[in-house]
Amino acid sequence: MRPALIYYVAASLDGYIARPDGRVDWLEAIEESGDDHGYQAFYDSIDGLLMGRATYETLLAFGGDWPYPGKPCLVLARGDLPPAAPDVRINHDTPAQAIEQLAAAGCKRIWLVGGGSLAGSCYSAGLLDELVVSVIPHLLGAGIPLFAAGLERRLQLREQRSFPTGVVQLHYQFLPEAEIT
Amino acid sequence: MRPALIYYVAASLDGYIARPDGRVDWLEAIEESGDDHGYQAFYDSIDGLLMGRATYETLLAFGGDWPYPGKPCLVLARGDLPPAAPDVRINHDTPAQAIEQLAAAGCKRIWLVGGGSLAGSCYSAGLLDELVVSVIPHLLGAGIPLFAAGLERRLQLREQRSFPTGVVQLHYQFLPEAEIT
Repeated sequence: MRPALIYYVAASLDGYIARPDGRVDWLEAIEESGDDHGYQAFYDSIDGLLMGRATYETLLAFGGDWPYPGKPCLVLARGDLPPAAPDVRINHDTPAQAIEQLAAAGCKRIWLVGGGSLAGSCYSAGLLDELVVSVIPHLLGAGIPLFAAGLERRLQLREQRSFPTGVVQLHYQFLPEAEIT
Repeated sequence: MRPALIYYVAASLDGYIARPDGRVDWLEAIEESGDDHGYQAFYDSIDGLLMGRATYETLLAFGGDWPYPGKPCLVLARGDLPPAAPDVRINHDTPAQAIEQLAAAGCKRIWLVGGGSLAGSCYSAGLLDELVVSVIPHLLGAGIPLFAAGLERRLQLREQRSFPTGVVQLHYQFLPEAEIT
């Protein structure tokens, strides 16, 4: 069985995951609240990670320890980026091939960490199963959209919950096109 | 006291209120559900309306009876548009002047009906007090954004609720800039 691919991401109310230059400083007030908004429970539920080049480079630039030790992480990037940890593999396969490799490594639930470009590719290729958006009470006005793909799709709401920080987490399922009525 | 200006609007999960050409056909499935998503209660709570030219023209194009009888409605538009009902006044004042006129007519809660352009002007001018977004479980990929203004602002979540249709309604308060910490 193909593993589930879950795009778990924070976005501004106007649908951006980062400023135009990739900065996420506007998330700091939320991160410093001490409320993890269910992150640990989500992280415990996944067993593999998929990320794009820009997201990986942002993580490297933060420095410090690799934040996802012990879970296989595939980074889709061309060129010679250094693997940040033993669990990290970097190649330039397609998203579908990457998911196959993570499946072969035993993964059943894969977190699509980001960013908008890879999410757009996975979305366009019909590979996304779930979308969990933490809607931040913030209007950015401009930025990197949730999906770098101008595609239309109906979703099914599975769950929603709000937090004292004003964050509302919306959990959607992507339906197979045939099931959309 | 200045009346409250409330932008009550439906938007796709990716932050669009209409397709690039203004069409809202993607809302039909939701509208046909029979669930009014709290619309009547909201409509009963407001006593005046403010709208932009494109929204007004869209309403005129639908034909039929004027949907907001008995409540004063100010349309901000240049040119010679016909008033659709006795309660409708059309002029090209600024949004601030329009709100003053509605206040003079006794209005305490004004619904900013749309669209994104007028909402952007009111937002830029600091005139908006509340934002109620009904998030539709739908990704549009492109369209007319919630606000036609690239401005950044933090909001305060007041309330949120979900409906069997998968719509999640998020109710925010705009804080005076000085109160934002």
